[in-house]
Amino acid sequence: MLDRIGTKWTSMAVKTLADAAPDEVRFAELKRRMPGVSQKMLSVTLRSLTRDGLVARRVEPTVPPRVFYRLTGLGLSLEAALAGLRTWAEEHMVEIDRANEAAAQEADWE
Amino acid sequence: MLDRIGTKWTSMAVKTLADAAPDEVRFAELKRRMPGVSQKMLSVTLRSLTRDGLVARRVEPTVPPRVFYRLTGLGLSLEAALAGLRTWAEEHMVEIDRANEAAAQEADWE
Repeated sequence: MLDRIGTKWTSMAVKTLADAAPDEVRFAELKRRMPGVSQKMLSVTLRSLTRDGLVARRVEPTVPPRVFYRLTGLGLSLEAALAGLRTWAEEHMVEIDRANEAAAQEADWE
Repeated sequence: MLDRIGTKWTSMAVKTLADAAPDEVRFAELKRRMPGVSQKMLSVTLRSLTRDGLVARRVEPTVPPRVFYRLTGLGLSLEAALAGLRTWAEEHMVEIDRANEAAAQEADWE
């Protein structure tokens, strides 16, 4: 389960929906607020989050139907746990990039 | 980067090394303490963690060489961030499994 919830797009979708809470967000708007996400990746991510009970999906029977997403209570509690990991990643990104560069150079010398 | 650090095996490797800290752990012992991990997956995970500067690798030039792993300071700080996500997953696993079952049944009726 950790593999599902710890990924970049899950984290970004949960954060985007948490920022909008308690309001719902439509698919197209969610995609706009998640730079770089593909239509397919967002659909797969939302389906997984919905199946896990972290996101609620509401369909208005207009033509075409309008689909709205929002975090459930469970989803909001995940946001708090993910925020810690996200903050850690932002604070340490430079150190990690530096370590990667050093490792790459070392590999060049071997 | 979040995709690398949020995965199940990265989280388990970091936790196992954190539990052993400040002692080092050899590859075979690390594999023993991580039920279900394959030799290849553990190698890939440790290489990624080492490249990111989260794990330090020390080789004793015996024949065959003996390889030791331990968390760096950066790695220990990641453990604190991962622990929050791990605890959340453990606390909510039952709710998520239930949501998955309900979603699967719903899919059967569609």
